[in-house]
Amino acid sequence: MPAEVLEVYTKELARRANPSALHAVGQAARMRIEEAREGIARAVGAATSSEVIFTSGGTEADNFALKGLYLARNNGTFTEPARPRVLTTTIEHPAILETVEWLESLGAEAVYLDVDSAGRLDLDAATAELRRDPERTALISVMAANNEIGTLQPIAEIGEIAAELGIPFHIDAVQALGQIPLDFAALKATAMTITAHKIGGPVGIGALLLDRAASPTPILHGGGQERSVRSGTLDVAGAVAFAAAVDLVTADLESRAARLSWLRDRLIAGIESSIDGAVLSGPRGADRLPANAHFTFPGCEGDSLLFGLDARGLATSTGSACSAGVSRPSHVLLACGMDEDSARTTQRFTLGHDTTEADVDALLAAVPEVVDQARRAGMVSATPRWMQGAS
Amino acid sequence: MPAEVLEVYTKELARRANPSALHAVGQAARMRIEEAREGIARAVGAATSSEVIFTSGGTEADNFALKGLYLARNNGTFTEPARPRVLTTTIEHPAILETVEWLESLGAEAVYLDVDSAGRLDLDAATAELRRDPERTALISVMAANNEIGTLQPIAEIGEIAAELGIPFHIDAVQALGQIPLDFAALKATAMTITAHKIGGPVGIGALLLDRAASPTPILHGGGQERSVRSGTLDVAGAVAFAAAVDLVTADLESRAARLSWLRDRLIAGIESSIDGAVLSGPRGADRLPANAHFTFPGCEGDSLLFGLDARGLATSTGSACSAGVSRPSHVLLACGMDEDSARTTQRFTLGHDTTEADVDALLAAVPEVVDQARRAGMVSATPRWMQGAS
Repeated sequence: MPAEVLEVYTKELARRANPSALHAVGQAARMRIEEAREGIARAVGAATSSEVIFTSGGTEADNFALKGLYLARNNGTFTEPARPRVLTTTIEHPAILETVEWLESLGAEAVYLDVDSAGRLDLDAATAELRRDPERTALISVMAANNEIGTLQPIAEIGEIAAELGIPFHIDAVQALGQIPLDFAALKATAMTITAHKIGGPVGIGALLLDRAASPTPILHGGGQERSVRSGTLDVAGAVAFAAAVDLVTADLESRAARLSWLRDRLIAGIESSIDGAVLSGPRGADRLPANAHFTFPGCEGDSLLFGLDARGLATSTGSACSAGVSRPSHVLLACGMDEDSARTTQRFTLGHDTTEADVDALLAAVPEVVDQARRAGMVSATPRWMQGAS
Repeated sequence: MPAEVLEVYTKELARRANPSALHAVGQAARMRIEEAREGIARAVGAATSSEVIFTSGGTEADNFALKGLYLARNNGTFTEPARPRVLTTTIEHPAILETVEWLESLGAEAVYLDVDSAGRLDLDAATAELRRDPERTALISVMAANNEIGTLQPIAEIGEIAAELGIPFHIDAVQALGQIPLDFAALKATAMTITAHKIGGPVGIGALLLDRAASPTPILHGGGQERSVRSGTLDVAGAVAFAAAVDLVTADLESRAARLSWLRDRLIAGIESSIDGAVLSGPRGADRLPANAHFTFPGCEGDSLLFGLDARGLATSTGSACSAGVSRPSHVLLACGMDEDSARTTQRFTLGHDTTEADVDALLAAVPEVVDQARRAGMVSATPRWMQGAS
């Protein structure tokens, strides 16, 4: 956690007050949370601070946006939905895909929009699906940037068409916040998910940017603390630290992004020049998240790479952290047309705002030996040995 | 936040790691969160640590228990529910009542069990309702202790009958944790809500105790981090601090409760002897939460009392904090048979684990003057002046 964020967080933790209480301590906490709300609203282009609905993080905000807007568009019920269609892409985060699947189990008609080999949404196909049956469409949800391979999506274009057709548009901007500019109003989105821990803020606090005119059905019912659409005691310390982190990463976004992009491209060039057969996944340059690099290393088990790098103090990931631990190939890579075997040879490198040139060079120095070792160890069968007897 | 809790919390905040990541830092975080889970399980009588499902707090846990169990009992759908009946009491927290109301809008049949004038559940009536139609009953939810007037409920008795009939039983134990003993297994509950910030832990972390055999439908879909029934990046720092707070308040529960009960009874006796007409709400002695006192002060606007005490550095509440700010009488008091005018003359006093005898005496010294002032100011009409012209 950056020092600036940690400082306001620990200061606020010492205060502790329920901003829904009427006494002076409670009302002072209320003022601080409203200041945090205003700061976040300004930083991401919300029209008013009331468009910032604090949540427990990205997963809740994604669930709230999709379930809440779906229900609101169908008179609050799952029975005989007038607008059963839910549009999304094949490479969304599990918080979106699992939610859409649940809505399907209750009668929704999911439309999964395809991406090309670099993970970029087919805009023509998406446009056709939006125009096919707008009257029966509940919403469309598209991520601003993919969490695994860093692909930026044409969210501005989707926003234009969705707005024209009156279809609510949700953006999962969890990965994009602090790396690319986000202007909620200009994007013409109905809702947009952001979260604190991806930008150096605490875990357990996020927000759904929510158009003033939108009234999604709550998914957390109760005291109605957030505009009567989200309940739960407000986390003042979390909100204040979140605002501080947003302020930090958006204040000098262009220079930060330029620095990260330069480091990323150095990392990519270094791996491409030193590792035979290494292939970058996702796009290059301005179409990619500044902090993301993702490679396939043919003949290398992803786990072997991860543990080899980890032993040298380098923390990486084989896939998205959320599905790590589950030994199945990434749905993102398969959706991009990669075969299952190749999808098991991947490694994701994420740069932090405090990553230095020396850190990148240390990684580049370590990768050749780790790849050699992983290649010598060979590929393990996709089926664990203990399962091979069973069927 | 107690120093012991703050210390582990800030130490953990400095570490920051995603316990779902496979690298060493992630796996170390995983170990610490599993230790936290075990500590909480032990303290509240769970059979195994896997019965502790971390959530963002009490509101989420309540929503998850009710919606999740309701759906699971109805084949995951709202359509033509085989078990539409949902039993609860008239004095639950809004997180329960609003959730039940939402389920009703989707086809559930809510049965609201009555309480007596002290807020105690009518056990005979509850038993009759449980036995009336167990095959068509989805679940029953009863709070361990009321958050406004401190009434303890006969949860052990409800648990016996519910278990005999095979009806899932949820306990909202948010207020009870750290004040009365809670033994999840002995209570024969299917699920039990607890939260950290009520016992000195951080805001934004709680848990649903969940029987190993129960598989509620998730309300937060995604990566499936918690036993595949709850998704969202795990808040390691929050969980570790929560466990520390649980440890602190349960380790010497009896002596703490005895101390708080003594202070509470001193407060109650002091108000009753010094304030004409003051009436204690809720039960006395062992049937009441040790840290709660709640009075009606006839002729005193609750807000006037609150602001008068606040000016003297004494933080109190007119009703539950969750519905404060909304000028309507407490649903708990109305359910206990209090009339609307009396319900607007109430004040709740909550003792903390660090409240001293001197603090109580300071309150007792201040109350007579504040009550006098409030009585002189008189009762304000229930309808604000600016609304009286409208209809």
